[in-house]
Amino acid sequence: MKSDELFALLRRRGVLWPSAEIYGGAQGLYDYGPLGAALKRRVEEAWAAWFVGLSHDYYLIQPAEILPEAVVRASGHLENFTDPEITCENCHTAFRAETILEKVRPEGVDGLLPTQIAEIVNSHHLKCPNCGSPALSVPRAFNLMFALDFGVSGKERAYLAPETAQGSYLSFARMWDVGRRALPLGVAVIGKAYRNEIAPRQVLFRMRSFTQAELQIFFDPAHFLVPFERARDEKLPVLRVPRREAGQESPEWVGAAELVASGLPEFYVYHLVHVFRFFRDVLRYPAERIRLFEKSDQERAFYNRIQFDVEVHLESLNGFKELGAVHYRGDYDLGRHSEGSGRDLSVTPTGGSKLLPHVLELTFGVDRNVWGLADTHLAKDGERTVWRLPPYLAPVPVGVFPLIAKEQAPYALALADTLAAAGVRTQYDDAGTIGKRYARMDEAGTPYCLTVDGPTVADGPEHDTVTLRDRDSKAQERVRAADLVARLRPALEPPRPARS
Amino acid sequence: MKSDELFALLRRRGVLWPSAEIYGGAQGLYDYGPLGAALKRRVEEAWAAWFVGLSHDYYLIQPAEILPEAVVRASGHLENFTDPEITCENCHTAFRAETILEKVRPEGVDGLLPTQIAEIVNSHHLKCPNCGSPALSVPRAFNLMFALDFGVSGKERAYLAPETAQGSYLSFARMWDVGRRALPLGVAVIGKAYRNEIAPRQVLFRMRSFTQAELQIFFDPAHFLVPFERARDEKLPVLRVPRREAGQESPEWVGAAELVASGLPEFYVYHLVHVFRFFRDVLRYPAERIRLFEKSDQERAFYNRIQFDVEVHLESLNGFKELGAVHYRGDYDLGRHSEGSGRDLSVTPTGGSKLLPHVLELTFGVDRNVWGLADTHLAKDGERTVWRLPPYLAPVPVGVFPLIAKEQAPYALALADTLAAAGVRTQYDDAGTIGKRYARMDEAGTPYCLTVDGPTVADGPEHDTVTLRDRDSKAQERVRAADLVARLRPALEPPRPARS
Repeated sequence: MKSDELFALLRRRGVLWPSAEIYGGAQGLYDYGPLGAALKRRVEEAWAAWFVGLSHDYYLIQPAEILPEAVVRASGHLENFTDPEITCENCHTAFRAETILEKVRPEGVDGLLPTQIAEIVNSHHLKCPNCGSPALSVPRAFNLMFALDFGVSGKERAYLAPETAQGSYLSFARMWDVGRRALPLGVAVIGKAYRNEIAPRQVLFRMRSFTQAELQIFFDPAHFLVPFERARDEKLPVLRVPRREAGQESPEWVGAAELVASGLPEFYVYHLVHVFRFFRDVLRYPAERIRLFEKSDQERAFYNRIQFDVEVHLESLNGFKELGAVHYRGDYDLGRHSEGSGRDLSVTPTGGSKLLPHVLELTFGVDRNVWGLADTHLAKDGERTVWRLPPYLAPVPVGVFPLIAKEQAPYALALADTLAAAGVRTQYDDAGTIGKRYARMDEAGTPYCLTVDGPTVADGPEHDTVTLRDRDSKAQERVRAADLVARLRPALEPPRPARS
Repeated sequence: MKSDELFALLRRRGVLWPSAEIYGGAQGLYDYGPLGAALKRRVEEAWAAWFVGLSHDYYLIQPAEILPEAVVRASGHLENFTDPEITCENCHTAFRAETILEKVRPEGVDGLLPTQIAEIVNSHHLKCPNCGSPALSVPRAFNLMFALDFGVSGKERAYLAPETAQGSYLSFARMWDVGRRALPLGVAVIGKAYRNEIAPRQVLFRMRSFTQAELQIFFDPAHFLVPFERARDEKLPVLRVPRREAGQESPEWVGAAELVASGLPEFYVYHLVHVFRFFRDVLRYPAERIRLFEKSDQERAFYNRIQFDVEVHLESLNGFKELGAVHYRGDYDLGRHSEGSGRDLSVTPTGGSKLLPHVLELTFGVDRNVWGLADTHLAKDGERTVWRLPPYLAPVPVGVFPLIAKEQAPYALALADTLAAAGVRTQYDDAGTIGKRYARMDEAGTPYCLTVDGPTVADGPEHDTVTLRDRDSKAQERVRAADLVARLRPALEPPRPARS
């Protein structure tokens, strides 16, 4: 589906809609309805099960999402977290410089100075995309952080966190004391980040308030041992810099061992393999739509030593979109906060010598992936609209219907309660024909529907049976009610990486 | 335990700590560590299972936590969401007027005009609590909302949501279309709220960024039918206004039917009963420490027609503290937003006539209850420190230990993985004596520990057994490994209200 059609469907089904809709909406803000909120939580749980599950020394924390000014000064965000902005002096609309330069410089403006951008604007006689006027301002650096007056003095400033990562860095010293005082130590956060985007767009792709899931792994670069044998045989769809420079846009499949042989560290490739598996095996994006896009020296932030973005080809947005990334950030973060806070964040692991840990960051856009999962798995199939989500991601894994509400409603409601008590989330529905109810659940991504009918109870309490209908095969099967939990429960746990 | 001692313990164990600790902290902001983040999530899940579980027409959504200015103007927050603030003109410290008047007016300053507050300050010759100077300013209204420059124009204002409720009100029209177009319709939110508190204090009790769980039930006051027979026989510990005015502070136990006979609506008492049961049966606060505190006409916000606060006596804070509340808000909210947005939010239920729904709000402070659960359930027991959390609230429900790491580690790790795959969260620990490992898990609130030892594997794969140790009874029992999931899983599901 195209973006508009997909958004209309998601809005109608109560998956998501523009925030403050009755007031005309608020740019870059969206509300998740019942299905969307549940899907988002399932995606977060699947992410945590997979990545925090990679090691007994990886932990999930929940830091505050307001940062004192000293923190963002040290992290560099106060100075550098800017987008070049160009304003039309005729219609007063503000644009990201990238947007103005889109056609003449599709690779973006990262690394260009304002004067260089202005020169390109002039030399190409670029005009305002809104009113067509040539009266474009010189670019200015627009800081994307939201500032707050914090406290009552009017003098204290704080900022909404522009990324969740800072919360992990700030917590490193405490986590060192709480944990085993050993490296690697992983500190994950699933939380809100805020950016005052100049031009919010593409629905969940450039929001002003959004959810990130990020794992920061603190490690000793001389001794980051990973069980590489669990990754060695994987092939990855990488698009490396030389191939890109040769004009290719499609990835090539390269073995993990070969990537290491080419100079990438084992720990980096090991985690990249697990990120790839998460996208392919857990979120179930088709492998051929995934590419691991290597960023060049010029494209990366200066503190990133290695960066591959995880991109997935989305039909609704007409191309590959960044849904995650793996950044090797060196010792930049703990170094900056050691300096900024005056507290030396180097540590001495048991039996080792003192060092400032390096950071490997696994970052994941939760909202973008909610959209990606709709783009990829929600489709028309003849007359049906079916959302083929994996069962453990389904907002409602099980629908429960009485064939005739007047007769089987109490049984169906009791069945729904029994399943809920065993941790199987259900939705009860008795409105309309069974066919219509199936159609509603298909659209909501529900993999299993149970129908209670005449024969259910006629069989006698010990042998009660219901009809189990499978979303994908449409197959129907008579199943003992007593067996339902054992039958359905395992499919509702998200996969975890092999560990032992 | 006293507050300081409890906080020191929670900080040391990595439950929570002051945000940006290495920078000296940020007033009113806290970070949750691994145990705290997990406990908080369990509390949220238990709340949702119980309250969203009350009806098939109650839903959980996740709206944005940034509100455009038009929204907070309509809701009244822009004008009225203020605290009277008094500044010392000598030392320049700002105080809540309530704090300055604490000793002479313990009932607080709600409803007083600034001039009346100033008069009390003068007549009692009150002084600055910080420096002792009598040079106190006249009270000014300090708006507690955090304002944001939203967008790039510099002219658009937005606010961090001061409560989650507004997100439900803004979504009502959309939820009406998404749902069955019938009343009652419940719209729940678990999310962040932000208040620039003049004087943050008591750790998680007055934070600047905190988590609320709120259920807004939209209903027709002429036809809000509830299954009152499920509530009728409950007795509630109420402290009503006349009893308070007679100088009593302890509640009296009054039957639900009697409360209805006294004039409270059935729908109100029905929900109050379920709130009480949640505190007693799910969070397991001792019934004798709970009181339902009725607010008088003067104490309630003017739009609240009925209000009982749920208070629990906390040793660490030396008295009863508000941990939740039930507000009957009439049609104030949808009325204000109809006016503010220009969109008529009245609805016509199938077979009914047009009306502007009323709102019953069930509100719950997640952070406050994390503290309450530590205060109430975490205690010294001789040499032990034990956190007697219900199993479904435990951050880590199961500890898994090899008796001798060198010998049984692989088996114990595989067992931990098997349990995780069945939805039983575990923590592996092989450091120190078994006694020390039990002690660590006791403090973390873990109800079950499993020890793998020599006899485990000696029995042969079909008959493998491990030692299951119960936190509360300290009893140890030999259990078949194959039976563990069936044995442990049911205790990990939070209770749900009887529904069918």
